Amino acid sequence: MILVNGQATDTVNARDRGLAYGDGIFRTLRTQAGQPLWWRDHYTKLAADCAALMLACPDEAGLNAEICRVAEAGSGVVKVVITRGSGTRGYAAPAGQTCTRIVASSPLPPHAQVGAPHDIAARWCTLRLARQPRLAGIKHLNRLENVLARAEWDDPAIFEGLLCDDDGMVISGVMSNLFWVRGGELFTPDLSQCGVAGVARARLLRAAARLGIRTHIDRLPPAAILAADAVMICNSVMGVRGVARLDDLTWPPADWPTILNDALYEDVD
Amino acid sequence: MILVNGQATDTVNARDRGLAYGDGIFRTLRTQAGQPLWWRDHYTKLAADCAALMLACPDEAGLNAEICRVAEAGSGVVKVVITRGSGTRGYAAPAGQTCTRIVASSPLPPHAQVGAPHDIAARWCTLRLARQPRLAGIKHLNRLENVLARAEWDDPAIFEGLLCDDDGMVISGVMSNLFWVRGGELFTPDLSQCGVAGVARARLLRAAARLGIRTHIDRLPPAAILAADAVMICNSVMGVRGVARLDDLTWPPADWPTILNDALYEDVD
Repeated sequence: MILVNGQATDTVNARDRGLAYGDGIFRTLRTQAGQPLWWRDHYTKLAADCAALMLACPDEAGLNAEICRVAEAGSGVVKVVITRGSGTRGYAAPAGQTCTRIVASSPLPPHAQVGAPHDIAARWCTLRLARQPRLAGIKHLNRLENVLARAEWDDPAIFEGLLCDDDGMVISGVMSNLFWVRGGELFTPDLSQCGVAGVARARLLRAAARLGIRTHIDRLPPAAILAADAVMICNSVMGVRGVARLDDLTWPPADWPTILNDALYEDVD
Repeated sequence: MILVNGQATDTVNARDRGLAYGDGIFRTLRTQAGQPLWWRDHYTKLAADCAALMLACPDEAGLNAEICRVAEAGSGVVKVVITRGSGTRGYAAPAGQTCTRIVASSPLPPHAQVGAPHDIAARWCTLRLARQPRLAGIKHLNRLENVLARAEWDDPAIFEGLLCDDDGMVISGVMSNLFWVRGGELFTPDLSQCGVAGVARARLLRAAARLGIRTHIDRLPPAAILAADAVMICNSVMGVRGVARLDDLTWPPADWPTILNDALYEDVD
């Protein structure tokens, strides 16, 4: 089911700036029993991303109600898209622009369902992310880099591709944030130049602090991952997954993905 | 008037990948007497951009017919958008994806009408374009940088903003390509790292060759423009315009914009 500005419909205005320029942001969140999971974090991030692009942020209670209205009865996924609305041609946004708000539900993907494998196989992508501090961290609608990176493989055994920036520093997965452990300490890439700072990543960092795990947010080369004791990816739909294989490199099963995944869900909003 | 896949409508599927990810390309062209101007160049560029993003390119005759169908009776603007179609959630494009084709007309904007000033005022933007060679030159739908740059000013006296990349090299205007003349030779930025390689730019380079004007396509700093004898911007809707003022710097009227604008329209397709 899809709501566009609160109305049930499958379509949006063909002159919407979200389509014309990718002029907007989005959130993909998990729902359980018809309610958004981690709502406090998702709304906080949505509001921050709207502010970064000078978009009017939808009212929290109203948006929550729309998510509940479209959510599947059991577990599912809801995507929220906020664009700068439809308007005349040209990059300049008309004054007093009314945003477009799209709230759409989908079934839970196989990899996020109960019983899905805890560990996944990944590969390095050749595409390098461009560094744009004005857009870094924001989950905006300009995602051609992710589309091109995801098009680098069609082997269904490969679940995720890992990305570096044009400086050769590790940033993230195509659809996930990246963490690794070495000597009992947790590492995750600095996202001040590119990448999406996801809600699962923010929760994982809070969980690590709660558990007393020393954490490093840094610009690090791929060699740092190759030397890790355990590597993990995470996002809001699937939680934490262990990386069992990265191209020719393998890691034995570790407790870390389970420990951190459990911690991710423990945090009370 | 808008045609979506040949059907008159004002809407597109809310799950279109053009909206979800900016996964597509576009063209903005001028029409005259109901026909697209510079059609050969526009279709060639559309096909090249589709190929660069692995999008199926629409048939030439069919697309031309749709442009003529929506075009205003006199002069006008037609925008063509090609997206990877609508589909399931996720960056991976489904196999055998059918593209979405949007053909929409608009009135000619004031600055492109007969009698509009030949010279314009410009300013430098603070936003720096990120360098992404995989997307450079392509007129794709990921245009948040242009939106943010255009939002840097609202003074109606300023017509265009000029952009550098994150290395400080001059790239283009927000909605135009950039040329300047020094000592009788023509200069335009190299667009292999970022920027859009527009059809007016390609035609201007051909015109310069025809006129025997020595041309340099190079990575150059803003100082190169400040030392220019004449500065111009161009795009397919307005042709060539002289830059009379750039922040505090002014140039006296020169013949170059008129010479090059005339040459732009002389080329027979």
